[in-house]
Amino acid sequence: MPSYGWLLALYLAALPGNTAGAVAREPTERNCSVIPPYLPSTAVNTSLQLKELREQMLAMNISAYVIPGTDAHLSEYIAPRDARMAFMTGFTGSAGTAVVTQTKAALWTDSRYWVQAERQMDCSWELEKDVSISSVAEWLISEVPPGGEIGFDPFLFSLKTQENYNINLESSDRGLKSIPVNLVDKVWKERPPVQSDGLIRLPDRVIQRSWQEKVEHIRIQMRDNPYKPTALLLSALDETAWLFNMRGNDIPYNPFFYSYTLLTVDKIWLFLHTERVTDDLKAYLNASCEGALCVQLKGYDTILDHLKTYVAGPGVKVWIGTEYTNYALYEVITPQDKLLTSSYSPVLTTKAIKDETEQQILRDAHVRDAVAVIQFLMWLEKAVPEGNQTELSALEYVDNCRNKQKDSRGPSFETISASGPNAALAHYSPTIETNRRLTVDEMYLIDSGGQYLDGTTDITRTIHWGKPTEMQKEAFTRVLMGNIEISQTIFPSGTRGVNMEMLGRRALWEVGLNYGHGTGHGVGNYFGVHEWPVGFQSNNIPFRSGMFTSIEPGYYKENDFGIRIEDVAVTVPVQTKYGNNYLTFDTVSLVPYDRKLIDTSLLSSKQLQWLNKYYETIRRLVGPELDSQGLHEEKDWMLRNTEPFAEVGSSASVSSSSLTLIALAIALLHDIV
Amino acid sequence: MPSYGWLLALYLAALPGNTAGAVAREPTERNCSVIPPYLPSTAVNTSLQLKELREQMLAMNISAYVIPGTDAHLSEYIAPRDARMAFMTGFTGSAGTAVVTQTKAALWTDSRYWVQAERQMDCSWELEKDVSISSVAEWLISEVPPGGEIGFDPFLFSLKTQENYNINLESSDRGLKSIPVNLVDKVWKERPPVQSDGLIRLPDRVIQRSWQEKVEHIRIQMRDNPYKPTALLLSALDETAWLFNMRGNDIPYNPFFYSYTLLTVDKIWLFLHTERVTDDLKAYLNASCEGALCVQLKGYDTILDHLKTYVAGPGVKVWIGTEYTNYALYEVITPQDKLLTSSYSPVLTTKAIKDETEQQILRDAHVRDAVAVIQFLMWLEKAVPEGNQTELSALEYVDNCRNKQKDSRGPSFETISASGPNAALAHYSPTIETNRRLTVDEMYLIDSGGQYLDGTTDITRTIHWGKPTEMQKEAFTRVLMGNIEISQTIFPSGTRGVNMEMLGRRALWEVGLNYGHGTGHGVGNYFGVHEWPVGFQSNNIPFRSGMFTSIEPGYYKENDFGIRIEDVAVTVPVQTKYGNNYLTFDTVSLVPYDRKLIDTSLLSSKQLQWLNKYYETIRRLVGPELDSQGLHEEKDWMLRNTEPFAEVGSSASVSSSSLTLIALAIALLHDIV
Repeated sequence: MPSYGWLLALYLAALPGNTAGAVAREPTERNCSVIPPYLPSTAVNTSLQLKELREQMLAMNISAYVIPGTDAHLSEYIAPRDARMAFMTGFTGSAGTAVVTQTKAALWTDSRYWVQAERQMDCSWELEKDVSISSVAEWLISEVPPGGEIGFDPFLFSLKTQENYNINLESSDRGLKSIPVNLVDKVWKERPPVQSDGLIRLPDRVIQRSWQEKVEHIRIQMRDNPYKPTALLLSALDETAWLFNMRGNDIPYNPFFYSYTLLTVDKIWLFLHTERVTDDLKAYLNASCEGALCVQLKGYDTILDHLKTYVAGPGVKVWIGTEYTNYALYEVITPQDKLLTSSYSPVLTTKAIKDETEQQILRDAHVRDAVAVIQFLMWLEKAVPEGNQTELSALEYVDNCRNKQKDSRGPSFETISASGPNAALAHYSPTIETNRRLTVDEMYLIDSGGQYLDGTTDITRTIHWGKPTEMQKEAFTRVLMGNIEISQTIFPSGTRGVNMEMLGRRALWEVGLNYGHGTGHGVGNYFGVHEWPVGFQSNNIPFRSGMFTSIEPGYYKENDFGIRIEDVAVTVPVQTKYGNNYLTFDTVSLVPYDRKLIDTSLLSSKQLQWLNKYYETIRRLVGPELDSQGLHEEKDWMLRNTEPFAEVGSSASVSSSSLTLIALAIALLHDIV
Repeated sequence: MPSYGWLLALYLAALPGNTAGAVAREPTERNCSVIPPYLPSTAVNTSLQLKELREQMLAMNISAYVIPGTDAHLSEYIAPRDARMAFMTGFTGSAGTAVVTQTKAALWTDSRYWVQAERQMDCSWELEKDVSISSVAEWLISEVPPGGEIGFDPFLFSLKTQENYNINLESSDRGLKSIPVNLVDKVWKERPPVQSDGLIRLPDRVIQRSWQEKVEHIRIQMRDNPYKPTALLLSALDETAWLFNMRGNDIPYNPFFYSYTLLTVDKIWLFLHTERVTDDLKAYLNASCEGALCVQLKGYDTILDHLKTYVAGPGVKVWIGTEYTNYALYEVITPQDKLLTSSYSPVLTTKAIKDETEQQILRDAHVRDAVAVIQFLMWLEKAVPEGNQTELSALEYVDNCRNKQKDSRGPSFETISASGPNAALAHYSPTIETNRRLTVDEMYLIDSGGQYLDGTTDITRTIHWGKPTEMQKEAFTRVLMGNIEISQTIFPSGTRGVNMEMLGRRALWEVGLNYGHGTGHGVGNYFGVHEWPVGFQSNNIPFRSGMFTSIEPGYYKENDFGIRIEDVAVTVPVQTKYGNNYLTFDTVSLVPYDRKLIDTSLLSSKQLQWLNKYYETIRRLVGPELDSQGLHEEKDWMLRNTEPFAEVGSSASVSSSSLTLIALAIALLHDIV
């Protein structure tokens, strides 16, 4: 699934904003400029929550209140109980910021979500389309009187967010006020509770390093750091999950649990909802002692006080990763010489490089995942021409295929099942209103992934069951060329993804095509599907051997079709003629591409060789798994779809120059004769 | 000529550190660990200046003094009177920082200059090899007692440098002290004076926009800026030179003059050494009035006071480009709401896009420059086998060839003329000690450029007059492939160079080779040869149509040889099949590459086509100029060296499959007969 980085704002502006798959009956979007305003049935009446929030704001003496769409761990995907922006606005998209004053309310979200916002919000809300913080600040300056204060929940701001608001409001005579108790929570009567169970430790078979070993490894990095930190604060949910080899169920599709860790050179404090910790887990965590390898369990809500107490001690220095630490925790680490920052904590940078076991089981998970996707594609090929399948029925089918696989833990994100023009929206997921019938006349895009106990998968295939246009074939082939170009490139260890990602776009650029999302994101062993900090964006870390990333160029034609080809690949060492320490990618997603859409005449012979070698790998790795699962028809389908492609050159090029030679030879012979 | 960005620190660490071209007689480097210390004749005795500087430091009550290698305009190349680091240390390299305490003295410089530093410094100086500011700060913390102050000249620190020192010294109880009078200048008795003349206005034939038009154009950008700046401060020397279409002679190879400009919506203040301004120039600048298009001349040294006075006024806001404004000017613009910053001033971003006249005359300059280089290469081909030529004699010859061309104003940088192992040092320039004889047994690298009234050139060719090794041919061809891959790529307007520069490295990476410098820098119309902010580094601005940049991949084999191929190219619009607003590069350097070093079997057919088309362009554009200069022998040499290459496929590949066909045809005919 593609991710959107801040660097891509430019591209996003060019993305299609509006398509409607369903037959138009009534307007599906609100119209606030008619009297009375027109609201579709999907719009949410937010009068009550606005009224109550405004009362809270009066009590706090603030003129505006900012409501970000994230949680205290700055998670990309959030739990229902953190969906404060959605509760306040009605808008359920995954990215946005809401701001409320006594007289106005506004939502900022990017072009992916403008249509959805117009469908879900009532006329209490303005929709603002420039999502930069400077645009929010400009609005605040125009709506908040001089001297007024703007409240925010410091748990929901990153350091950078806070700093950014600060810079933009500087010298405007409007101040930022950090209010550690969330005002939306005060008026949200039916806010979902925290899960009361669902904590698990991973089975030994998927683990190489015990949590004790990981703790020691991180402590070595603390000791080796020249700034001599005495403690490391872990805020991102996957940091604590990784460190203790544990998982939870707090966020849909993401096996995380609410937690923080404060790791010192001789103590471990784990902050979580302690009532969820079973006796088994307590024993596993060695929770009844206070030594260097004992995990002391503390209440989730005590982190701030505990951190304050720790920081008050003499000679301490707390290391934080700035990308995932919220402002509430950051602001208690004072004075500055008690703070050590890096963009990412050593846990995230260590976790980015998978150990041998992690690499092997993640490869294994991809073999089983390929079986599920092949099963699904074969079924579609038969079912679509019969005319009864839709985006939603296909979505259900692929999820079921995965569920049957060993160690399945459900999808890794909301499946993107998109036909024709719906696929032109890169992040579309079907709803009852937009659900489209699948036909042989349209291209279909399926972007889906699974959570397995041993790994997380994410794969996109684009298919045409009828006769694609020349333009569709060309665009698909060029997207594929982008995928191959990245996959086969050889680069020095330590090269940044952002400096290579143009290889995914280059074949498209050549004919004036492009795409408006990132080219790939990290992925790992039963974590969130976008596993930071690996990938091709500017804030990703350099590639080292053993990192898994998606590679996913695409092309989207507004109101017409969408193409994306996504595979997961792992960086592996490669032997070069002269140098050492070079890497390349080894693709671990193992599903053939739609042959009908590949124009092999566009591929270079090196690209064609890569493709044929990839298909051999699919046969070698997925064939036995299909056999062992008794899926004979699927095996045949896979074999048919991984037939090697003939080199275009090997037949066509002979016809030109060689025929002249033959003619010449014949002429000569005639002379001889 | 390659440039080194901060991002390349990693690569630099891998660069060769030590080669010696001259026959070893006595050690050429100092040895401070023997008693008495051994000093080569090239070492400079710095006892006196150190003693006197330390007295100045005592008077100012500082424990350490930092001496950067730049000037008040943060210029890459500096005038002799700004060579304070060289005066203090003896080391004359173009990059470095010196620090002096009462008992110690240390110089930080990068790997390019380690050998040179060991040759030029006496044993008063430590050589430090990690050039990061954190390394300097670490040294300062170990040498300066707690509570001690570290002095610096705020005119020689950029904002970023100051901030960086500040962060690194934070909470160390060592403070930074800004001392606006330079302490080195106080002890430098024979400091060269400012030039007393040399200011010129450019002739009308090389100008499209008068200075008045440029001023109005910049004022529009000030008015359009949402932060409503009232003034723009220009600090970089090429900003003022560009704005007024003027040039000077203060810095070798760089036609600049010491100056600042403070441009408001209705005033223009030009700060320079007013005694240099002739009556003609005063008339040209409209210097005797105070209106919106009158240039009020002020003394160069009055800028700080003038700026303070301006900033003290009500409702003012000064726009600065942070990359080129020194800390002395920055620190007087307070409070913060009187300041508006961008990385580059609107003058630099406007200047980056050349107008039609600038583009045409810069292309013209490259045609004449090609004549000079062709003349030089032809001469070398004859002269080298005779055995009397050296790096220095070749350097002199190429400079002379350029001098004969119309509008020549001398070389644009110190010519790099390097044979064999000397060429493995990317920035080597020959001296009497290192001068190497040119022979048919070594590769030779010539990186040179000219200043012309209409443009600045910069071109590198690598040649072998004898029999190159297979490895040399492969490396050369792969460097060339990098050059071609960048040159022919098609990309959306607004793409950043740093996101494409790996195309210059990719063919090398494939076999485990790489290079340790940048891939290209902006170049323009009679300015410095590294014309910021265009290029392929991370702090360069995105490419738009009409920008000129060098493209210069290379490969360096330590103690053996060096290869670099450098051409200047301009970004031009290109028609694509489906999209608009795409660009590609058009190469304006017009000199053929050494045919002997090209292994065409490595080139793709697209690369070969590019090469043949480029050679056609050389013939079309340089041929007539050679004719009109009456250089018939050179014309023949050029024609010989731009013969089209045969496609490998068209002969070689025939031999395999086609011969079979011919055999078959013959067999058939035999049957018929």
